[in-house]
Amino acid sequence: MKHVHYMDQEPEKIDADGAKGVVIRHVLTEKDGAPNFNLRVLTIEAGGQTPDHSHPWEHEFFVLKGKGVCVTGDREAEAGEGDVILVPQDVRHCFRASTEMEVI
Amino acid sequence: MKHVHYMDQEPEKIDADGAKGVVIRHVLTEKDGAPNFNLRVLTIEAGGQTPDHSHPWEHEFFVLKGKGVCVTGDREAEAGEGDVILVPQDVRHCFRASTEMEVI
Repeated sequence: MKHVHYMDQEPEKIDADGAKGVVIRHVLTEKDGAPNFNLRVLTIEAGGQTPDHSHPWEHEFFVLKGKGVCVTGDREAEAGEGDVILVPQDVRHCFRASTEMEVI
Repeated sequence: MKHVHYMDQEPEKIDADGAKGVVIRHVLTEKDGAPNFNLRVLTIEAGGQTPDHSHPWEHEFFVLKGKGVCVTGDREAEAGEGDVILVPQDVRHCFRASTEMEVI
């Protein structure tokens, strides 16, 4: 069993093209014995954004705090606390934060 | 893409043996295109508990609100907002809530 508080994980700055003001905390990974779902928490500062990218697996987001916009392809959707967004595999996506956001 | 607020999902009462004061919301499932991680939110009333059970897959919990105890086998661990718990496959586990809890 692993039991941690997500804020106790070391934050890593995301430097990918298009990223602005984003850090990631890797809370549960394959190394912990979680092969199916990589539980990470993104912290995006107000005005910041995650890199616009895609990958060949689906992405499940849960907005813990703050609000902003989730952009997928040519769609934009407001996202706030408690919103859950499923991005299918290979669909481009990013978040733009209007207030500081924390997103699983 | 699916975009919902977790509280907009219909709650289902959990009636399994040992369950007390628990409802579950199935937010993302295989039917939505999420084959790897079933995103559900449990709401456990103060004094309530989830059924003590095990299953042949790992379980990743994220405590959204409230506090209580997570029991795994013969171990008990206090769990509060922001705590993340990984229960390995086939390990018995349950939550006992001391205040109303919401747990992914």
